Amino acid sequence: MELKYNNLDRTKAYKKLKKTKPVSLKKVLTSERVKEYVVDAGAGLRYNYAAKAVDDKIIELLSQLAVEQQLVEKYRALLSGDVINTGEKRKVLHHLQRGQLAEDVVHEGVNLREFYVEQHKKAAVFAEKVHNGEIKSQSGKKFDTVVQIGIGGSDLGPRALYYALEQYVMVKKGALPLKAYFISNVDPDDAALVLSQINVDTSLFVLVSKSGTTQETLANAELVSSYLKEKGIAQPKKQMLVVTSKTSPLAKDPDYLESFFIDDFIGGRYSATSPVGGVILSLSLGPDVFSDILDGAHQADRLALESNIRKNAALLDAMIGLYERNVLNYPVTAILPYSQALHRFPAHLQQLDMESNGKSVNRYGEPISYSTGPVIFGEPGTNGQHSFYQLLHQGTDIIPLQFIGFEKSQSGFDMEIDGSSSQEKLNANLAAQIIAFAKGRENNDRNKNFAGERPSSLLTAEQLTPSVLGALLAHYENKVMFQGFAWNINSFDQEGVQLGKILTKTVLSKNPDDKVLDSYAKLLKVY
Amino acid sequence: MELKYNNLDRTKAYKKLKKTKPVSLKKVLTSERVKEYVVDAGAGLRYNYAAKAVDDKIIELLSQLAVEQQLVEKYRALLSGDVINTGEKRKVLHHLQRGQLAEDVVHEGVNLREFYVEQHKKAAVFAEKVHNGEIKSQSGKKFDTVVQIGIGGSDLGPRALYYALEQYVMVKKGALPLKAYFISNVDPDDAALVLSQINVDTSLFVLVSKSGTTQETLANAELVSSYLKEKGIAQPKKQMLVVTSKTSPLAKDPDYLESFFIDDFIGGRYSATSPVGGVILSLSLGPDVFSDILDGAHQADRLALESNIRKNAALLDAMIGLYERNVLNYPVTAILPYSQALHRFPAHLQQLDMESNGKSVNRYGEPISYSTGPVIFGEPGTNGQHSFYQLLHQGTDIIPLQFIGFEKSQSGFDMEIDGSSSQEKLNANLAAQIIAFAKGRENNDRNKNFAGERPSSLLTAEQLTPSVLGALLAHYENKVMFQGFAWNINSFDQEGVQLGKILTKTVLSKNPDDKVLDSYAKLLKVY
Repeated sequence: MELKYNNLDRTKAYKKLKKTKPVSLKKVLTSERVKEYVVDAGAGLRYNYAAKAVDDKIIELLSQLAVEQQLVEKYRALLSGDVINTGEKRKVLHHLQRGQLAEDVVHEGVNLREFYVEQHKKAAVFAEKVHNGEIKSQSGKKFDTVVQIGIGGSDLGPRALYYALEQYVMVKKGALPLKAYFISNVDPDDAALVLSQINVDTSLFVLVSKSGTTQETLANAELVSSYLKEKGIAQPKKQMLVVTSKTSPLAKDPDYLESFFIDDFIGGRYSATSPVGGVILSLSLGPDVFSDILDGAHQADRLALESNIRKNAALLDAMIGLYERNVLNYPVTAILPYSQALHRFPAHLQQLDMESNGKSVNRYGEPISYSTGPVIFGEPGTNGQHSFYQLLHQGTDIIPLQFIGFEKSQSGFDMEIDGSSSQEKLNANLAAQIIAFAKGRENNDRNKNFAGERPSSLLTAEQLTPSVLGALLAHYENKVMFQGFAWNINSFDQEGVQLGKILTKTVLSKNPDDKVLDSYAKLLKVY
Repeated sequence: MELKYNNLDRTKAYKKLKKTKPVSLKKVLTSERVKEYVVDAGAGLRYNYAAKAVDDKIIELLSQLAVEQQLVEKYRALLSGDVINTGEKRKVLHHLQRGQLAEDVVHEGVNLREFYVEQHKKAAVFAEKVHNGEIKSQSGKKFDTVVQIGIGGSDLGPRALYYALEQYVMVKKGALPLKAYFISNVDPDDAALVLSQINVDTSLFVLVSKSGTTQETLANAELVSSYLKEKGIAQPKKQMLVVTSKTSPLAKDPDYLESFFIDDFIGGRYSATSPVGGVILSLSLGPDVFSDILDGAHQADRLALESNIRKNAALLDAMIGLYERNVLNYPVTAILPYSQALHRFPAHLQQLDMESNGKSVNRYGEPISYSTGPVIFGEPGTNGQHSFYQLLHQGTDIIPLQFIGFEKSQSGFDMEIDGSSSQEKLNANLAAQIIAFAKGRENNDRNKNFAGERPSSLLTAEQLTPSVLGALLAHYENKVMFQGFAWNINSFDQEGVQLGKILTKTVLSKNPDDKVLDSYAKLLKVY
């Protein structure tokens, strides 16, 4: 099929959507709908959209939009190795890290699936050698700690996944293979605090930078190296691994304990299932756990190929989000996991979504006249209930909500108090919030009145396991991808981060062209 | 002076503001302005608004608005003990925790300043006894850990302040008096993970709930108690303190090791400078540090009485924010601290602002027809640069930014790499971002074009010390207060959290009235 790339506002379905009447949740939300509006999202994860303000007519138009914009076909083209990242002229292959869903992708004579599998295996073998003590620290001790040094995609995704499964693994295995820490910020206080908490003698460091030139990561690697030397570790690089591209300056340094490779077809924010996440997660949680994450993600990736929108959770989530953004004009979406283990998952989605779809030009660099990616924020429930939910319930703007919840806890640590366990209280709160937001409650005291009509979706599974987490991660990646295709933008570059880098260099040269910049630099005592 | 409470859209200044032309940052932002547009915010903190899209005319109208809405006079009334929280018919006295700026506030025969000082002293004396070993654990050991059990205002503010000064105190004192942890979520995995990381034999627990009935906090206290018993601590309450109101059920239990009291005039999100924050911060950081936080906050509170808007940082910040919200129609504000120590400060501000001003009715319960509190989100720089800044630079919506930065790090741990230290790199990035956002950069490749005109402010000080942190905290509290007065809403109640609580109870009774709620509860296996 020949692919056509049209702006959203050129499609017939969008014009029809713009003329639809808003749906009243108070009217349409029934218990039948709660049972029926559910889609398999892979690995036991389910997407429930009963409390979204859509009806059959709107979903039919969203389906037409998906067909008109050839969303699943574009996904197929991506899987097949087409140059989807038009800005940087690159393939987009993070799905291939998890499994193969289309023909072989061969680049410069290399079958890339084989390359990815080889790197995953290398990480697994390495992690096993660390775990069984075959690979030891310079003082001959077994490693008990691993520290990731990376920023952005080399930090947020791996960190969110680690926290999501830290306790799960502690319970399943009795203990973590290695405890993980993360250093990201160029603020030296970040590295200082982490270093004050660990025993460097038994710590491995994973230095992650695709280009090998990331300012923050190189600065932190140097800070850590100097600290290690101070602590009597003569060759810090012998306790450091690198995850980088084969062409980077880091790859050429033979002094590091080991190197793992990624390529330019894995964007930073999509790299959690590459060695960027794989090395630290295999070391800290175990290669089996990382493998299960990949399996779960692969299941979600496969389901995203489904052409029937009612059976494709990522596509449906994407199109409902687009309807909320472009037809209902809601500028923000909240991610609300009722699971403390997911406390940094919203921060990962913030990068994933806002960096991918925070764009104002289409894939050809032409200005567009409709809204693209929303602001994403969130905190776990029930914490958020005692914080910003006031605005969500009674503020002047409507914020669409994405709830995430699980039947069982990870720890199993619980007790019945006043007739219910903590896990039951957690989920009772979640159920109650969905209804409170959707249906509201009238009160003659307007200060206690709830207007309702606040839409939400619910991603749910029996438990937050590695494979469920993989499916959850891939669900959002695929949602963001489908929205980008529908908006006709390139979700895989990030030119918006470049100007800051250029101006920073001029400040560090102590002589910026711009006088105002000079004033700010002086005010902040850079020089 | 008699106070009048009018809706924003009834003021003359607002109508005039609505007719002003937007200001072009590219035109007005000069190096002179960077030096002149600065206001003292207390304790060495300065508010720089050079890169905000305002000019003399707009500031004059914002000043008129402040006069028309009697903002400083209303603040004086609040300080004097007027019933400003009209919904709950309560005084609003968090400022009085930090010092006295108006006449005595006497309630039921008690001088409340004296009551607050007494509780602070009690916390200080208690902390000193713990530090010098006079108060020991049940097994006769010195305490080395303190765990706060609280949610919302009993968690976010104290937690943000602890993280903000943890390293500062480590460096100044050589070590933390006690290491602090926090349990907040009713998700049992939260308590389980914290308990797995500490030695309960040497841990104090601070149970914080003003009402003494908070579901999450009571459930977590029970979980912790049962765990302590399991670990051989026969009387868990002898290692537990309570912070609560004198009338709460918790206050009546003599078994706790010690009790500290707050009253109904200190709202949860404003309670970081009450014993809610004071007990854990005095224990973990030292009473001297907590006292310095109070001093810094008091300095900011005093400056907020200034009637000249150009000399009142909180008032100016508030009015510029209102202009951005109601005239420029920006629905979101980002908080971007270039300081890893402030990594949870945006989460505190999220509650402070969104719970205070996420309202749709005025203080009389009448609907209003203008926007109120924005969505607040943020992460530390430079991390955010590698995450969501793409959308901030090139997304379809403009998001006003609030930067925070410091000349010096807390740790002093640093080294020069490629001609600059990490701290210099951090601040070079901050300066560069302000300019990139404000001035943009044209490029014929539209994908690499930066439109600029993205407004930002900068709060800055020499170093993030306890007193600077106190001023920073109070700055935002006072900003939110002034905005609430200008919008004519009650910033001190939170009726929007009630419906969820009511519906949760019906779920836990296993027989909710609402069939849809029943469906969700079953889906989530609550019963």
